[in-house]
Amino acid sequence: MFVGDKVDPDDVDSEGVDPEGVVSEGVNSELELSEERMLAMVDQAMERIVAYVRDLPTAPSYKIDGAEEMARALIEPLPEDGEPYEGLVSRLFDEVIPYGFNAAGPGYLAYIPGGGLFHTAVADLISESVNRYTSIWIPAPGLAQIEAVVVRWLCEIVRYPEGALGLLTTGGSMANFTAIFTARRELLPENFLDGTIYVSDQVHHSIQKAAMLAGFPASSVRQVKSDADYSMSVDDLETCITADRRAGRRPFFIVGSAGTVNTGAVDDLDALADVAVAEKMWFHVDAAYGGLFMLTERGRAVLAGIERSDSMSLDPHKALFLPYGTGSLLVRDRETLARAHAADDTAADYLPVMRQDPDFVDFSEISPELSRGHRGLRLWLPIKMHGIGAFRRQLDEKLDLAHWITERLREIKGIEIFAEPQLTLVAFRLARAGLSYDKLNALNQRFLEAVNDRKRIFISHSVVRGAYVLRICVLSFRTHMPDMERALEDIREVAAELR
Amino acid sequence: MFVGDKVDPDDVDSEGVDPEGVVSEGVNSELELSEERMLAMVDQAMERIVAYVRDLPTAPSYKIDGAEEMARALIEPLPEDGEPYEGLVSRLFDEVIPYGFNAAGPGYLAYIPGGGLFHTAVADLISESVNRYTSIWIPAPGLAQIEAVVVRWLCEIVRYPEGALGLLTTGGSMANFTAIFTARRELLPENFLDGTIYVSDQVHHSIQKAAMLAGFPASSVRQVKSDADYSMSVDDLETCITADRRAGRRPFFIVGSAGTVNTGAVDDLDALADVAVAEKMWFHVDAAYGGLFMLTERGRAVLAGIERSDSMSLDPHKALFLPYGTGSLLVRDRETLARAHAADDTAADYLPVMRQDPDFVDFSEISPELSRGHRGLRLWLPIKMHGIGAFRRQLDEKLDLAHWITERLREIKGIEIFAEPQLTLVAFRLARAGLSYDKLNALNQRFLEAVNDRKRIFISHSVVRGAYVLRICVLSFRTHMPDMERALEDIREVAAELR
Repeated sequence: MFVGDKVDPDDVDSEGVDPEGVVSEGVNSELELSEERMLAMVDQAMERIVAYVRDLPTAPSYKIDGAEEMARALIEPLPEDGEPYEGLVSRLFDEVIPYGFNAAGPGYLAYIPGGGLFHTAVADLISESVNRYTSIWIPAPGLAQIEAVVVRWLCEIVRYPEGALGLLTTGGSMANFTAIFTARRELLPENFLDGTIYVSDQVHHSIQKAAMLAGFPASSVRQVKSDADYSMSVDDLETCITADRRAGRRPFFIVGSAGTVNTGAVDDLDALADVAVAEKMWFHVDAAYGGLFMLTERGRAVLAGIERSDSMSLDPHKALFLPYGTGSLLVRDRETLARAHAADDTAADYLPVMRQDPDFVDFSEISPELSRGHRGLRLWLPIKMHGIGAFRRQLDEKLDLAHWITERLREIKGIEIFAEPQLTLVAFRLARAGLSYDKLNALNQRFLEAVNDRKRIFISHSVVRGAYVLRICVLSFRTHMPDMERALEDIREVAAELR
Repeated sequence: MFVGDKVDPDDVDSEGVDPEGVVSEGVNSELELSEERMLAMVDQAMERIVAYVRDLPTAPSYKIDGAEEMARALIEPLPEDGEPYEGLVSRLFDEVIPYGFNAAGPGYLAYIPGGGLFHTAVADLISESVNRYTSIWIPAPGLAQIEAVVVRWLCEIVRYPEGALGLLTTGGSMANFTAIFTARRELLPENFLDGTIYVSDQVHHSIQKAAMLAGFPASSVRQVKSDADYSMSVDDLETCITADRRAGRRPFFIVGSAGTVNTGAVDDLDALADVAVAEKMWFHVDAAYGGLFMLTERGRAVLAGIERSDSMSLDPHKALFLPYGTGSLLVRDRETLARAHAADDTAADYLPVMRQDPDFVDFSEISPELSRGHRGLRLWLPIKMHGIGAFRRQLDEKLDLAHWITERLREIKGIEIFAEPQLTLVAFRLARAGLSYDKLNALNQRFLEAVNDRKRIFISHSVVRGAYVLRICVLSFRTHMPDMERALEDIREVAAELR
């Protein structure tokens, strides 16, 4: 039997409900789907997806009651036999997915939203169906090239020079890890344990975790004080570096923040770049949330100096609105990534040849992963469809919305703006003279819970210098003025109730 | 304006081709898609996907001519404006995707195939569209639970005890890295640089890379000799450990292989487990390719002892046929993962509460990543639809096919079986008395190229102890007997031509 003689997949029952499976002439076609079956599966999924997206504005912002019972009901031993797809999809949409936080909805203003562009889901439907191997260029020169192209676009957005490159990651944690690892390999000897990393006391905890993953003891991470605006104190940074050098340590890595998670603070990136140059250290910016505001004029003013960094993490699943699962690490000099990930004794004789042409990238050579999913199309498709201009206008709208609600919150009696928005994150709280710190914190926790219990919007909190603060982050492409008005109404009413 | 007052997305042009965008009453709806648009986008993608899958058996096994020109044509500056989706999809399928290796086709017998179940593409279409945050339980108790459930299923397959757990990764590299990191944190002090890792000289190079990522110098990785069957020499392992202890090093990590990439060799896992117990070391198995054969009776015989390991990497994108992007790390004792990833100073005050109930898992607490894509549904959906029985029968069929072609190859004059298949990978080559090693290698390279140039099947090679060998790995759910007959015909004819 040769090509053309294959069993027609339409002739066989492609579902595993028959425990005997379909074996004819030595061909087990159980997992093969006919064309009709593929189309029907997608049609049924799409029917539910479209309804889900349609209902996002009116769906409750979160749903927790009954979650434990639902989750326990999912626990079962490995099933030997199958069950119909139709029932599984219904169960997912009716019973499983709705629990928790409605992160895709327009009222989601908690943590760092993004929404989740449907375009990306379509891109992955394509890339997973064709299942090309894209971590090395030659097995998939087209799709691998698309990944290189979008990484260069990100470099262009942040105004990195020619010679910059980077990689798409699963998120900010892996980007920060790869940055620390790359700098460790570039600047420190094999015994790197006295290498010292400088973060502000407002920095994202993924940096500490990344340092630990890369081998550094907890004592290697120095917490630099932050100023009144929650940006890193450049004076304290210099003091710490000097003290550490005197103590025989090796300062090598400064982490600037382009939008902290607590208050959205942006460090003085130009000043940090100056320190890094003077001290011959690596300057990394955690720009997971804020870096893509380089698309906007206001963002470029706030982020001035970011283009002088050696590396930065940037999450397209935040400010480019992609579904979770797409971060990036960009580096000013692509050779640093190549040197860091190369190892003399890792010859892999079974792999395809690597490219030497700088236009083509073997991502496995400049990143920690070998086999992994393709990550390029999920960015390329929405950017090519809409142009980056559409994203720029979205971010400008979010800047407008964050500043609009800040001014309205400021007008509400009893509310104070805890940290002014530098981009689209505003931290605020109820202030009340005469209350102890603990009682004030408890009051603000009740404030948050009462706002969220209305289930029209969803916001989150942080604890900053001991203060429990509420935070609104405007970053979903689905969030527009009507949603901000809704947020304001709920906050205003709850604040009045608590007065 | 409140809920219900939102601009009807059907009223606006949802494509970014209008550079001015759609801004009405402060609502920028540029990136919003109407229901009709979502459905149309998927319909158009599916038309191409279905045709692509239909043509897999007759599509050339690889396409390289013109790849560089195609790839260079993709290079362009960040586009400010959009272009129609329809043209982009056509370009992808007509000009971009077809280049490189046809990894999804039935004739793909190179590296470690998998095929790429379409079910998983549908699962991701769903999970990306609803865009729930699943790295912490409370934001998505349903989908996070599905991830925990499938991880426990994997533990059940490999016969790990109660108390085992693990995580889904992007592939084997991250799984191996997390294993080394976890053992480092569990067994070594903060200054771990004298810790020593034992691998066979046949081990996958991702182990060396993972050790480097986790902070170990290259000299920490000891290459233990392999025996005649390419499995790790237990005698040499013990000799190395003893010598290292005498030299003041800290042996702490043994890597067994359950299917090497070179020849598919499976180490004597029971014997390695004995050594690890006696030496109080961590026993990790790189079972990325082979571990899932624990589903089959023959696999369990070959892999005996794997259930005694402390951890193992296992790639569902290999032996469960998922698209690239789903590996896993399983650990015998879930507390090791929790302890390794915990750090006193990584309090993140802005995150939701973590669960204490052992039925529920906050994956961010036991893994290196925080925000990332959801990975559970891509496994859950195909297993629930078909039952694991269908996968078991597929793997049994692959075992049959690998052994069938091995016997047929053995009958071909001039071909020698270089390594007998222990699972579904067979290494072979042309042998010719009187030829120098180099000439024999060159002959076998021509052999490989001539087979692949027929473009009906695609196989790859490795260099094992200096010998250039061809390898067939049967592991795609789309590969059946007709494909093996096709492979045999091409190999037989080319061998005859070269005689």
